[in-house]
Amino acid sequence: MTSMLLARRLAPSIQHSHHLIGPGCRLISQAAAKVDIEFDYDGPLMKTEVPGPRSQELMRQLNIVQNAEAVHFFCNYEESRGNYLVDVDGNRMLDLYSQISSVPIGYSHPALVKVVQQPQNVSTFINRPALGILPPENFVDKLRESLLSVAPKGMSQLITMACGSCSNENAFKTVFMWYRSKERGQRGFSKEELETCMINQAPGCPDYSILSFMGAFHGRTMGCLATTHSKAIHKIDIPSFDWPIAPFPRLKYPLEEFVKENQQEEARCLEEVEDLIVKYRKKKKTVAGIIVEPIQSEGGDNHASDDFFRKLRDIARKHGCAFLVDEVQTGGGCTGKFWAHEHWGLDDPADVMTFSKKMMTGGFFHKEEFRPNAFKVRFGIQSASWNSSHHISVPGSRKRKKGRREKRPPCLWQPSPYRIFNTWLGDPCKNLLLAEVINVIKREDLLSNATHAGKALLTGLLDLQARYPQFISRVRGRGTFCSFDTPDESTRNKLILVARNKGVVLGGCGDKSIRFRPTLVFRDHHAHLFLNIFSDILADFNPEILLEP
Amino acid sequence: MTSMLLARRLAPSIQHSHHLIGPGCRLISQAAAKVDIEFDYDGPLMKTEVPGPRSQELMRQLNIVQNAEAVHFFCNYEESRGNYLVDVDGNRMLDLYSQISSVPIGYSHPALVKVVQQPQNVSTFINRPALGILPPENFVDKLRESLLSVAPKGMSQLITMACGSCSNENAFKTVFMWYRSKERGQRGFSKEELETCMINQAPGCPDYSILSFMGAFHGRTMGCLATTHSKAIHKIDIPSFDWPIAPFPRLKYPLEEFVKENQQEEARCLEEVEDLIVKYRKKKKTVAGIIVEPIQSEGGDNHASDDFFRKLRDIARKHGCAFLVDEVQTGGGCTGKFWAHEHWGLDDPADVMTFSKKMMTGGFFHKEEFRPNAFKVRFGIQSASWNSSHHISVPGSRKRKKGRREKRPPCLWQPSPYRIFNTWLGDPCKNLLLAEVINVIKREDLLSNATHAGKALLTGLLDLQARYPQFISRVRGRGTFCSFDTPDESTRNKLILVARNKGVVLGGCGDKSIRFRPTLVFRDHHAHLFLNIFSDILADFNPEILLEP
Repeated sequence: MTSMLLARRLAPSIQHSHHLIGPGCRLISQAAAKVDIEFDYDGPLMKTEVPGPRSQELMRQLNIVQNAEAVHFFCNYEESRGNYLVDVDGNRMLDLYSQISSVPIGYSHPALVKVVQQPQNVSTFINRPALGILPPENFVDKLRESLLSVAPKGMSQLITMACGSCSNENAFKTVFMWYRSKERGQRGFSKEELETCMINQAPGCPDYSILSFMGAFHGRTMGCLATTHSKAIHKIDIPSFDWPIAPFPRLKYPLEEFVKENQQEEARCLEEVEDLIVKYRKKKKTVAGIIVEPIQSEGGDNHASDDFFRKLRDIARKHGCAFLVDEVQTGGGCTGKFWAHEHWGLDDPADVMTFSKKMMTGGFFHKEEFRPNAFKVRFGIQSASWNSSHHISVPGSRKRKKGRREKRPPCLWQPSPYRIFNTWLGDPCKNLLLAEVINVIKREDLLSNATHAGKALLTGLLDLQARYPQFISRVRGRGTFCSFDTPDESTRNKLILVARNKGVVLGGCGDKSIRFRPTLVFRDHHAHLFLNIFSDILADFNPEILLEP
Repeated sequence: MTSMLLARRLAPSIQHSHHLIGPGCRLISQAAAKVDIEFDYDGPLMKTEVPGPRSQELMRQLNIVQNAEAVHFFCNYEESRGNYLVDVDGNRMLDLYSQISSVPIGYSHPALVKVVQQPQNVSTFINRPALGILPPENFVDKLRESLLSVAPKGMSQLITMACGSCSNENAFKTVFMWYRSKERGQRGFSKEELETCMINQAPGCPDYSILSFMGAFHGRTMGCLATTHSKAIHKIDIPSFDWPIAPFPRLKYPLEEFVKENQQEEARCLEEVEDLIVKYRKKKKTVAGIIVEPIQSEGGDNHASDDFFRKLRDIARKHGCAFLVDEVQTGGGCTGKFWAHEHWGLDDPADVMTFSKKMMTGGFFHKEEFRPNAFKVRFGIQSASWNSSHHISVPGSRKRKKGRREKRPPCLWQPSPYRIFNTWLGDPCKNLLLAEVINVIKREDLLSNATHAGKALLTGLLDLQARYPQFISRVRGRGTFCSFDTPDESTRNKLILVARNKGVVLGGCGDKSIRFRPTLVFRDHHAHLFLNIFSDILADFNPEILLEP
């Protein structure tokens, strides 16, 4: 494996890296002056069938220690750049799936190379702190430069987490605490609550629920999995909670031809949501919150209208349920807005919003009223103690007088910092990279680019749909977050395999959809390149033939 | 904030970094030739009360966006090295808590600085892959160099995860799948299972349980939290599962004086475990697995004898339950063995073992029979499909013939790679660092060091216990994994605060214990340094006085 190109870019002359042109690369200059020069390849270059012999050998080795049957191929990330993923057999592919939608500004972006190279940053990559107790000096600054600079409307509070599942799990917990605190009012935890929670019983562990939608994907840890309903294989054999599941609209396309039907479909789903809230309250499994993706991704790229989400948000408010928007896949700019929920045009779009993937770190934003509440410790109840060995008064929050004896009041409102907590709480080295990613997104106006390139992609897909209706239907999308349906799973999978051998990486979702999840540096010309290749594929495509080179 | 020292170490002369001596630093040369020269400070240096003014200002700023009341102080990680943590006010403290036990070989270890600096590694820090589908070329090699080189007995299979909670969550899922697969035998998923799992109902989501112990801590996501029983504040207001909870032995110290009582206590707990397994089977909440920490850490550093664990392992085997050992805090060498369960001396110590913290990546090892099983897809059941768009046959696992029509057999054993899966599945940049950490552990024989330095620490603590029985009791430990009890929570918390202002960072656990969790480069002389400081503290200590400078 050669990595000469990267090595050259790592030389002290890095600031001139855009002058370096390696074999097979070219400079792609954008017309608009504001767009930075991008380091990218000029097209796919295929040398073997994928997976090639080297990938196959590595798959065999990996399969000895874990099930490697999900592996597509092994990658040479050193040689990958921009929108192009290079594999270990030297194949170079236009990547429209970008690591399940988790690469924000392309592979090996020079700005990120610099972040790692800067001497003052090395410490952040090797000294991972317990962020909740011992944050680094620049923690607040980096949050301001990165996540806080793109905070969604009304949600001023921010917690970082290591991944999307942990983000949703902790968002659920935040919702449960908020709901219980509303019910509890001014009283503190009761002795019964403190004792029963230790043995997983109500009232300490209340029978609250989170309402989710059929087709949703919110992660695979046990709390998240109770709200995930996209594929049986994610859920089978795993114990779960009896939580309400509403139908998600199944829209008919083209939308302009099915306006009334789609409105009726959305109304039906919203009605079911309200019915379930009432039904589960009666069952004593009160719906503390509703979770929804702005576009159901893993479940098949299922869209609903902005109006649907506005009404859903109203229903949540009406019934006193928290409204939790999962932007793990939709967030970060790919829909043309930084957060997909911005398309709804609401001043109060959500109470809690989770993110991960393209944001490089997981986490969630929430409203101030969802800050885990202070709680009343009743005298003599030892088990009420949070790990107060860690506790330090925040300046101004509590006054102490010098030399005075400390006297514990019999009843005390205590801060509750350890209610949402874990050892790492994210990773500052991801915040460092994200700050630079957000710089690049802003500097290069990559949100406008997503709108523009997405339009080129969608227009092209609609054209292919018109020409090949036997293979392509229900073309849909927002920004570059596009997709279409194929006739069936087998055809879909074959199309993905054929495209890969022609140098294009695509991803599936749902039963028979293909989803586009390119990076934010995916430009119009990449869209046209893909459309040309895919058009050729469709012209020759025979779903009945087993495909091998 | 100056970071000149680090900057100097990052110069091209890094290979000679052990010749650099900055102000306040010294070279600590060990007598034994095998021990590398260590870059460390020569003692604490305090300039302000902790938190100092700069920390307080940053805490105020952080508290605007999240509850910052758990923050001890803000850190200058660039200046921190070895066993010494430097804060933003220039205070330098001997760190015996090491970021809640998650720093393996000390701060700013030169070997790790090198890993970040090497040009061929930069890509790994900026191109984070979806490991389950597109691993990097060196993935298997790095696993071999790191985790596989310390694989626990009998557990050849390995999955990486992003954190400890995700590790336990996925270990539970692995256990549930294994248990159901035993029950299911040769038959595939039934139509009823495939349909009911999508709506969280049995039989698709069976009512299995995991047996845990009172006082245990296994994480805070909802599955983990159902097995965590250390503090009410971790659990209150969060819905949970009705899973069995057994008592954990409460040993009396000194152990040699209470041999019989402790044996009886352990026998009582083991009997309760068996009773609960029978009881929950009757309740139709079958115990699929038992999870236990080799030493309950967060819950108060509760030890049990090796014999207790050997018998517990036998009980799990007898009742057909998986035996899951949580080494998130005990693993990585601090007890003097790489995994604490090695002290039990068993050939078949566990079925699944989880790790995180000092291992820098989360994950779990398991036996081959726990590999998520192939499953039978019955013809026509679409919802049985895993996301087969990703599917690539592992070479040799299935043969295809050229040009032949693909024909789906009506009934087929399918691989099931997507049953344990998420987008990132860990992070290769952590594997890269871990490979170097394990190199250092082996090269410097840091397991022997943990035994040796731990003995110095424990001996000193026993001596302090003899001199200050009013403050110190139940001194206990294995390797450097030591602890003692104080009379009450308030005294414990004050001791921690006083020690910090004298330049020693300690951690609490349980209601009133202090735990020692130093790095693996904690040497005898650090133990003696701590013991001298702490002895002075105890000589002057008055738990009734409110302490401020």
